[in-house]
Amino acid sequence: MSIQINEARLWQRLMDMAKIGATPAGGCNRQALSDLDYQGRQLFEQWCIDAGCSIERDAIGNVFARRAAKKDLAPVMSGSHLDTQPTGGKFDGVYGVLAALEVVETLNDHNVETDHPIDIVVWTNEEGSRFDCAMMGSAVWSGAWPIEKALALADLEGVSVGDELDRLKLAGDKPFDHNIKAAFELHIEQGPILEAESIPVGIVTGVQHMCRYRMQIRGQETHAGPSPMSMRRDPMMSVGEFLNRTYEIANEHAPDGRVTFGYINAQPGSPNTVPGLVELTLDLRHPDGEAYSAMQSKVEAALNESVEKFANTVEYERVWEAPGVQFDEQCVSFVREGAQTAGLAAKEIVSGAGHDACNIDAVAPTSMIFVPCDDGLSHNEAENISSTQAANGANVLLHALLEASRAG
Amino acid sequence: MSIQINEARLWQRLMDMAKIGATPAGGCNRQALSDLDYQGRQLFEQWCIDAGCSIERDAIGNVFARRAAKKDLAPVMSGSHLDTQPTGGKFDGVYGVLAALEVVETLNDHNVETDHPIDIVVWTNEEGSRFDCAMMGSAVWSGAWPIEKALALADLEGVSVGDELDRLKLAGDKPFDHNIKAAFELHIEQGPILEAESIPVGIVTGVQHMCRYRMQIRGQETHAGPSPMSMRRDPMMSVGEFLNRTYEIANEHAPDGRVTFGYINAQPGSPNTVPGLVELTLDLRHPDGEAYSAMQSKVEAALNESVEKFANTVEYERVWEAPGVQFDEQCVSFVREGAQTAGLAAKEIVSGAGHDACNIDAVAPTSMIFVPCDDGLSHNEAENISSTQAANGANVLLHALLEASRAG
Repeated sequence: MSIQINEARLWQRLMDMAKIGATPAGGCNRQALSDLDYQGRQLFEQWCIDAGCSIERDAIGNVFARRAAKKDLAPVMSGSHLDTQPTGGKFDGVYGVLAALEVVETLNDHNVETDHPIDIVVWTNEEGSRFDCAMMGSAVWSGAWPIEKALALADLEGVSVGDELDRLKLAGDKPFDHNIKAAFELHIEQGPILEAESIPVGIVTGVQHMCRYRMQIRGQETHAGPSPMSMRRDPMMSVGEFLNRTYEIANEHAPDGRVTFGYINAQPGSPNTVPGLVELTLDLRHPDGEAYSAMQSKVEAALNESVEKFANTVEYERVWEAPGVQFDEQCVSFVREGAQTAGLAAKEIVSGAGHDACNIDAVAPTSMIFVPCDDGLSHNEAENISSTQAANGANVLLHALLEASRAG
Repeated sequence: MSIQINEARLWQRLMDMAKIGATPAGGCNRQALSDLDYQGRQLFEQWCIDAGCSIERDAIGNVFARRAAKKDLAPVMSGSHLDTQPTGGKFDGVYGVLAALEVVETLNDHNVETDHPIDIVVWTNEEGSRFDCAMMGSAVWSGAWPIEKALALADLEGVSVGDELDRLKLAGDKPFDHNIKAAFELHIEQGPILEAESIPVGIVTGVQHMCRYRMQIRGQETHAGPSPMSMRRDPMMSVGEFLNRTYEIANEHAPDGRVTFGYINAQPGSPNTVPGLVELTLDLRHPDGEAYSAMQSKVEAALNESVEKFANTVEYERVWEAPGVQFDEQCVSFVREGAQTAGLAAKEIVSGAGHDACNIDAVAPTSMIFVPCDDGLSHNEAENISSTQAANGANVLLHALLEASRAG
């Protein structure tokens, strides 16, 4: 029988990390580069040092904890992120980081030496909820985002990424080195598919195309009473029309099209004043490039028409975009073999969420592993997996890493 | 020729008051019981004292500046409010207060003694934007709201009306005395009707029925990517449906029905998370009681159906309601005669906005005077009237007050 990770140790560490930023409803609020994120990183680094790893950081605060190897070869990399949404869960990101650490601990327990070193990685600001750039650390590392742009990103209070890296002393001098043998990211599915089919492992072959719009619809502020409806320029009228049309467009592209209005705010926000301005965001996704472009065109047309219909005006911008990804065939087959060695049923799946793995894939061979999560929930304090589910994914990662870290 | 108010003095005082809380866009932000509201009240009281008035305040901070009379009779009352919306204008409320003061100055200039004293009144927190009860001071004075409830009302920072009245020492011991001969409120129309017909004076015969709803639509927070649309419980889907249906209901009751969504906010407000909760407000108005009730029933049904359609849930409450008002016939005729004496064309009109006059009307004979304002705009920093328009209304008020303050 093949070696296995220590389920109890992995689970205990997940629970210990979850105490940092724990919310009353059972979730986590450990936003990027906050004091709580700092505490989480400190705990992680101490565990890595105790496991014999050496720690390095790069200029955007990404952490690389290396388990040395027999030979001076390119590392095999595995990790994810420790930051969470404001009302996030205990597993999104954290699980991938701590499972990689658990693999290292297991190799130590069994005195396994690998040909290639193993780097456990923590990417800075994956969530993009405090600083509005999802997967920021891996984007800077891979060269997709200039570091100056990332350092200048400010949160709602005007504090920048650079300010926080300085304050918390989290930046290091490790170069952005893309000489990587293979990279893996283990993650909860964040969707309902594996759970619905009772399959413990997802072999992730790629990631959906996705983008984020910000829009400002402007009308004319006026008193809620005297103006007849027909004489108003009320931006909320355009919002109602645009929401309905956008959901219709997603239906035309069912079941793979996704649209999400995560943020909306009306100004000045007084109950008896017709708003002069409504700001909202739209997140749009589809795995197929052509359908994705078609959805974008239709949504932009619907926005312009909804605004014109009620004599409002709009400014909008695609503030973020991540093209779809096809993962490296050899890395995908390492995962497939890992599931076989671990004796676990697995199915190929396309990720609906973006991951740091998308950025890594641009510069090094990459793939991902999914495990099911309760009700497909994530970005939610009720996000949950069982200890067994956590162990399953970590065992697949163990064998994929063992396979990939073999020379030749 | 009849006596006339001093247009230049009235305009200068409007401009002087507008400096307190002036916004860069030309409006005013002088919210109820703020330091700036305090400054505005101080300036007003000093002008009144200089005009020979005696000042009294009641327990909710309403100010009564009395011009004494020949006889010890019930006062004739005229005033409005000095507080503004967060992005309000220079005339809403303020104009009614300073025009009443201008009438007193004019009577002084011409050595006119009246039989009944004249009280210039400032009502506390008419706007209800900082403390969520519109027309609060007049509601407490008239007995429509218990004073304990008003004193306990807190703003978003948790500071209460009672806290601010104590801090600013604005409460007095004048009793809530409803022995009033007649009450008048001069105000900008806040709507487009008088301007469209080029009529300088509105004889206000009553006020629309109006109410305010607060609603919380709950769904299930989840990640923006992985969940198929058909498996989501996204409260924004219900919002889109509900907005459109509500605007349709207003159209069915055109041209008098009014609906306004002034506040909307999605939680947690992260662009890549399906919101778990959307909070919004709806302001609903109609001058006819039956149509008003029908609109309420239809909107509540539309809300429940929009929520059920997407498997969300809702809690809603009618947090505020002001029944429609028919003003006192004699007071309305004082205004009609005032316009005739001033030589100004006038038309009867129903107010679409609530006013302190609605609360006064419940306990004393009351009516209102409107003047047109640019583009019907108010609750807007661009709110505007000309010096001539201001003088027209004040002259009508002068003659209405002269008529009403005559004994017998």
